[in-house]
Amino acid sequence: MVKVGIVGGTGYTGVELLRILVNHPQAEVVVITSRAEEGLRVDELYPNLRGHLDLRFSQPDPSVLSQCDVVFFATPHNVAMKMMPELLAMDTRVVDLSADFRIRDAELWSKWYGEPHACPELLSEAVYGLPEFNREAIANAKLVACPGCYPTSVQLGLMPLLENKLVDISRLISNSASGVSGAGRQAKIDNLFSEVSDSFKAYGVAGHRHLPEIEQGLSDMASEPVSLTFVPHLLPMIRGIQSTLYAELNDETVSLDSIQAMFEERYADEPFVDVLPLGSHPQTRSVKGANTCRVAVHRPQQRNTIVVLSVIDNLVKGASGQAVQNMNIMLGLEETAGLETVALIP
Amino acid sequence: MVKVGIVGGTGYTGVELLRILVNHPQAEVVVITSRAEEGLRVDELYPNLRGHLDLRFSQPDPSVLSQCDVVFFATPHNVAMKMMPELLAMDTRVVDLSADFRIRDAELWSKWYGEPHACPELLSEAVYGLPEFNREAIANAKLVACPGCYPTSVQLGLMPLLENKLVDISRLISNSASGVSGAGRQAKIDNLFSEVSDSFKAYGVAGHRHLPEIEQGLSDMASEPVSLTFVPHLLPMIRGIQSTLYAELNDETVSLDSIQAMFEERYADEPFVDVLPLGSHPQTRSVKGANTCRVAVHRPQQRNTIVVLSVIDNLVKGASGQAVQNMNIMLGLEETAGLETVALIP
Amino acid sequence: MVKVGIVGGTGYTGVELLRILVNHPQAEVVVITSRAEEGLRVDELYPNLRGHLDLRFSQPDPSVLSQCDVVFFATPHNVAMKMMPELLAMDTRVVDLSADFRIRDAELWSKWYGEPHACPELLSEAVYGLPEFNREAIANAKLVACPGCYPTSVQLGLMPLLENKLVDISRLISNSASGVSGAGRQAKIDNLFSEVSDSFKAYGVAGHRHLPEIEQGLSDMASEPVSLTFVPHLLPMIRGIQSTLYAELNDETVSLDSIQAMFEERYADEPFVDVLPLGSHPQTRSVKGANTCRVAVHRPQQRNTIVVLSVIDNLVKGASGQAVQNMNIMLGLEETAGLETVALIP
Amino acid sequence: MVKVGIVGGTGYTGVELLRILVNHPQAEVVVITSRAEEGLRVDELYPNLRGHLDLRFSQPDPSVLSQCDVVFFATPHNVAMKMMPELLAMDTRVVDLSADFRIRDAELWSKWYGEPHACPELLSEAVYGLPEFNREAIANAKLVACPGCYPTSVQLGLMPLLENKLVDISRLISNSASGVSGAGRQAKIDNLFSEVSDSFKAYGVAGHRHLPEIEQGLSDMASEPVSLTFVPHLLPMIRGIQSTLYAELNDETVSLDSIQAMFEERYADEPFVDVLPLGSHPQTRSVKGANTCRVAVHRPQQRNTIVVLSVIDNLVKGASGQAVQNMNIMLGLEETAGLETVALIP
Repeated sequence: MVKVGIVGGTGYTGVELLRILVNHPQAEVVVITSRAEEGLRVDELYPNLRGHLDLRFSQPDPSVLSQCDVVFFATPHNVAMKMMPELLAMDTRVVDLSADFRIRDAELWSKWYGEPHACPELLSEAVYGLPEFNREAIANAKLVACPGCYPTSVQLGLMPLLENKLVDISRLISNSASGVSGAGRQAKIDNLFSEVSDSFKAYGVAGHRHLPEIEQGLSDMASEPVSLTFVPHLLPMIRGIQSTLYAELNDETVSLDSIQAMFEERYADEPFVDVLPLGSHPQTRSVKGANTCRVAVHRPQQRNTIVVLSVIDNLVKGASGQAVQNMNIMLGLEETAGLETVALIP
Repeated sequence: MVKVGIVGGTGYTGVELLRILVNHPQAEVVVITSRAEEGLRVDELYPNLRGHLDLRFSQPDPSVLSQCDVVFFATPHNVAMKMMPELLAMDTRVVDLSADFRIRDAELWSKWYGEPHACPELLSEAVYGLPEFNREAIANAKLVACPGCYPTSVQLGLMPLLENKLVDISRLISNSASGVSGAGRQAKIDNLFSEVSDSFKAYGVAGHRHLPEIEQGLSDMASEPVSLTFVPHLLPMIRGIQSTLYAELNDETVSLDSIQAMFEERYADEPFVDVLPLGSHPQTRSVKGANTCRVAVHRPQQRNTIVVLSVIDNLVKGASGQAVQNMNIMLGLEETAGLETVALIP
Repeated sequence: MVKVGIVGGTGYTGVELLRILVNHPQAEVVVITSRAEEGLRVDELYPNLRGHLDLRFSQPDPSVLSQCDVVFFATPHNVAMKMMPELLAMDTRVVDLSADFRIRDAELWSKWYGEPHACPELLSEAVYGLPEFNREAIANAKLVACPGCYPTSVQLGLMPLLENKLVDISRLISNSASGVSGAGRQAKIDNLFSEVSDSFKAYGVAGHRHLPEIEQGLSDMASEPVSLTFVPHLLPMIRGIQSTLYAELNDETVSLDSIQAMFEERYADEPFVDVLPLGSHPQTRSVKGANTCRVAVHRPQQRNTIVVLSVIDNLVKGASGQAVQNMNIMLGLEETAGLETVALIP
Repeated sequence: MVKVGIVGGTGYTGVELLRILVNHPQAEVVVITSRAEEGLRVDELYPNLRGHLDLRFSQPDPSVLSQCDVVFFATPHNVAMKMMPELLAMDTRVVDLSADFRIRDAELWSKWYGEPHACPELLSEAVYGLPEFNREAIANAKLVACPGCYPTSVQLGLMPLLENKLVDISRLISNSASGVSGAGRQAKIDNLFSEVSDSFKAYGVAGHRHLPEIEQGLSDMASEPVSLTFVPHLLPMIRGIQSTLYAELNDETVSLDSIQAMFEERYADEPFVDVLPLGSHPQTRSVKGANTCRVAVHRPQQRNTIVVLSVIDNLVKGASGQAVQNMNIMLGLEETAGLETVALIP
């Protein structure tokens, strides 16, 4: 059994890692840390784990963590980078679910995350953990930066269009919407049930932290700089992200059928990307609790604008499930191990 | 007191008309029809009206309806047009909440609504009931075609941009999302709580009936043909529409401040359009139960794409509230009469 | 116009008072206080009030408040009692929405609210503001203690049974459930959307602060001490309380029809209590936004246990609406003024 | 691998059986029937199953079904009983999720389900499939009648009290609340999102079909006839049942600690009943998607009334999960096989 450590396990990505890992056939969580909840049984905080996990939160201790085969960081941003040099020096393999190592440009990172990066020298070592684009590099990585939730949905939706140079990369649009769990488990008035339920809004239109990450990823796929208008919205539901992506065809004579074929071919061997038949409208509930991204391609009115619909569970393929997928790849396990759960419908 | 008749009062726009009209200071509902529920007390179907309304559903009878000062049609599409010639012949004024008279081109209407139009000769007589664009014509109209819910949110969001020829009208995008009440009160599996709750999806991407109506309205505003990509989505909530609108500036040197000023000026005298300060993100709950449209203008990253956020309550400004607003204008009443309700927060 | 002051207007009962009062025909809010938000426009915090209210939050100042015809306290518990002696000394009439003056026994109050009462000498002066039980005393009161939300639903549901001595008062049961807005607008993890949505639970079974208030009220109605088992639950919705009340008949030969008749007679002249026909099941949505309490009486299997269903909107009849009703009575206004809103369905 | 057939697989208990069984290590679904959807791929109806199941709906055919090791009926009531004689004659083992064989008294069944029972001679052969009470009989059964959702939550909550004769069995109360999925996947206006969301109500107070089933089960546990007041409620959420149970102690001197100890002892070896520590309030989300029943015992104010809180997922422990648990027992498999999923929090 692979020994797993989790740093910062009290948030939603932490409990989601546990939900997945307690049923992983080849992995065992041996340590989970929380400064605030030291000593508390994990299943007191998360009663769904009663009977599945016999662990208490402990103080983060690099010497203990370094004995794990892999360590997940499920911490807020700006935390992982402070422990990373020490951990990597001890040869620990790390999957970081926070944003600390997602952006290669330290200055750009600093602009969006509000402080200087603590170890810019490690940024080039970090591998961006989108398996569908980076599988080989992930397999050899010491440090994987797990993609953000919105970025995962956007990149998987646009990748075939960009790799095939089908669309105008100067004016891509992602209209995205996320469930509230994306905001984490923090005591904020804005995320109270009475503030969020039965309502809908855009937010962060002037600039959301996921924008530079997405543009970096899309530019890698297009092999040239891509410009995206990204508007996130808050949905009155717990889990799920839908990105509705708009792109202008470079060549109007390309048929929708051929684009559909490109999508199907691109993802033919991907266990966690499901291209729906033409005419489909994926629902976020079809991936609730599952590590799947479902995409569908449209061309309304046979005009020049391609619309791609892309759904994921923000806590699974958008965070903890993808993190476990990365772990499986890094450690040479079956890539789908622990990730075969069927989404909960209804 | 103005005498009001309602045809087809069992649906959600019907009960919403009643909710508004029972507290209207100058109007009184004297007849409400339903073939299916004839004889039933209205407040047995809608207990919120107990103590407010002492009426029973009756069979629709033109001779009775024609004695009203105004008749609302809250029927499904393809119904109002069959009674309209007779009613208009009796000089009854009509506000039609259905789609029957929204599209001026009978052939285009027929293509989207699936049967020949029953009285194409009346189409030119119908006035499109968007007061902010058509107030004068409404005042003199015999027959007002009340705009659809999505069309209201889109047109009010784009009107200042189009009238001022600021944006590229060949590639406008409306990413819209609606609460489930927009689907009406019909027994369909697709609208069950267990199918819709806790999930999100796009629908009708290949073509939604509101598309031709919106393009007609936007073209009127731009004084030339406009092309729109329109993608509606279904929200897990009852009321509310948000349209997130994307338009490319014709002239990059126009400042966001000047655009904001244009919006504020355009709507300065409008009682039911509220332009939010720069940087705002309207929430649908801020208009829940109210006849207000709130809009906010953004220019992400100071790039070339303008983003307008527009929210309404689909049953109020998107249907029954706007219908009453039209009635007030037609009958020379105070335009805001009966429509001063404050939205329900939380 | 009656001049109204509101102390502590940033919470949900505060904004609800405003929603009601801005459309009250005979009242005008002239001052609203908040220590934390001093200087902020009220409609910046609550955008539903844009266009309806032109006020800013100010520091609470007794000399200003005392110029109002009535002052509402929409503060957390343990606040109003500290300002009350000074205000009452200046002859200001007060409606307190908090719990500070609901319990006549200072020691009992202190046990449940965690500190000594600040002005026990005023407790006997306070009138418990349940108009259906105390209308006359309210009319003459200087200080009205507005009932809690659960207590309102329970007392109105049981009053006819108790006044008529129909049931065993030693083992009454109230199984109550409330929407999340009852927990107020405070940044607590427990009330986050992601914690509360799509789930249901009982809470406070060992003892809830509303228990002594309810038992006091029920005992007044029964004219002898009443014992209640009270189990509150948290509903995944914003507004609404349902209390399902269980009581054992003292005399099994009493018919359900006669009990129904007693309920109808007891509430015949009450504008805000609606006794539904036999066999009914009130929905909380039938009172959403309205000041109505709807009750229905059942006798399952014709056995010995009477079941009463009682629904209110916790923020209206359970708080701010009832507060305005009390104000209307105190100031000799029409009791229903400002409170004729129809509940929002759907 | 055990071969499994499912009759009537288009409803919610059907898809839930599939969600569980596709990951069951020792079972394989080989046939699934639906008269209405014959020929349709199952994953077209339920896209969460894409990639997990390669089956189409077929016409129910006893000769095909009889080749299965076990057949589940996930049909509406009054269907299974019509096919049962033929199937049992072919020695097929059956788990019936409908109500057809839950009540031993054919006349009583007929009174609540509206038609004569089709094979009353088989009623005595059917074993009531509550493993915690009937495990041995289930192991030897040919036909298991899987308990209803409410009945499961009520019986597991009261069993230790009844077996130990601690409470007055003449006046038990169950105040239960269920998510909307309990109403099934049928096109009814009453279960539309816009009718159910953001609201709460009791229903069926005069008499719910689960009442005779619960009273039969409780009487078996108490070894004498038990009388229950049962009031079900409808929650604005998809999954989950909470029963809040009220019982009067026969002997006031029994301590809460000793009752807690009885519960813990009674369920010590039960893999799917979790007795929470004293003072706990189980949330339905803690069992969402899991086969667990969580119970907590309270004694408010140290008075005479015991309150038990019992939560399950109505589709899992209340239906399909319990059905698989029964299958495991009948076929000698590990009782927990396929049922180790952790509930989805958040």
